[in-house]
Amino acid sequence: MPTRRKTIAIDMDEVIADALGEHLLRYNRDFAHELTEPLTRASLHGRWLWDAVPPHRIRDLERYMLSDDFFRVLPVMPHAQRVLARLQTRYNIFIASAAMEVPTSFTPKYQWLAEHFPFIPTSHIVFCGDKSILRADFLIDDNPRQLRLFESSNSQGHPHREGILYTSPANVNLTGFRRVNNWQDVETLFLP
Amino acid sequence: MPTRRKTIAIDMDEVIADALGEHLLRYNRDFAHELTEPLTRASLHGRWLWDAVPPHRIRDLERYMLSDDFFRVLPVMPHAQRVLARLQTRYNIFIASAAMEVPTSFTPKYQWLAEHFPFIPTSHIVFCGDKSILRADFLIDDNPRQLRLFESSNSQGHPHREGILYTSPANVNLTGFRRVNNWQDVETLFLP
Repeated sequence: MPTRRKTIAIDMDEVIADALGEHLLRYNRDFAHELTEPLTRASLHGRWLWDAVPPHRIRDLERYMLSDDFFRVLPVMPHAQRVLARLQTRYNIFIASAAMEVPTSFTPKYQWLAEHFPFIPTSHIVFCGDKSILRADFLIDDNPRQLRLFESSNSQGHPHREGILYTSPANVNLTGFRRVNNWQDVETLFLP
Repeated sequence: MPTRRKTIAIDMDEVIADALGEHLLRYNRDFAHELTEPLTRASLHGRWLWDAVPPHRIRDLERYMLSDDFFRVLPVMPHAQRVLARLQTRYNIFIASAAMEVPTSFTPKYQWLAEHFPFIPTSHIVFCGDKSILRADFLIDDNPRQLRLFESSNSQGHPHREGILYTSPANVNLTGFRRVNNWQDVETLFLP
């Protein structure tokens, strides 16, 4: 009897798209005159970017995300394309972004996926807010809040679903989830 | 022991938003000179609008959907607001639109929901393509293809999920799903 093909939902920002890198680039460029040294991924260790800037600069970070080009120009995370293409031969792959948090991101995110992940059918893109709505066996996400929402139905008679934490500077100290540090780790985990 | 609050996913077009009405209005206005009589909901009986117009007019229907204002001006289906607000007191409600089919619809659909259904949190809006990705107990949709995708996991150890067919002119002859003809029927079914 054929076994069911499992479904993996994949977050966008910090998992396949380097939004933090773009944030740091713009922030260090615009506020160099205020900084004793540039903000780096390493210097964030355990903090969200939002908690690492002075309170009056949070609006500037938000402004970056609202600009037309922000989500359109993000670098692709290393090996994400190659590994996702391989995963797609063995799993149902859906891209699931919490895009409802930034409604101006819908179109640039859609265009970005068409450019960098043309092998993902558009029918397998999901823009949502609360990832408890995803029917999948696995969710790979950097955000522990979304992983907890995703796993929240586990005690209620649903098949077990597992949230997998993709390492980002903010979540390095977090425990309680299986962790992947990069796309090679994803490849090893799902295509051993 | 408290029972789990069940989740109902609700389609947009033809279920809470009268997209067909807007299509008919524009089509009958623009092509009155070609029509012996106006197209009506009744005259579609069992046909999708796409199958009821001459082949060379399908592009015009598509053009309507791509215009900036189409999804922004749609009338709300009668009683949808009142019944959804009531349902929300007893169920988890998500709005789930296959918006990926018309990417230009993201922003107008989001704004339309904010205007007409402000009590639905934006985190409970889902723009997707293939509704098999929805983890919900029920999906109310006029499109049998999406209902079948939604139910496709039923034989695979998931809790039973049920697609409920919301009547539209195209689906009047379809059997195989529990059917609701209007929002009063939804109210009776879920809040007896």
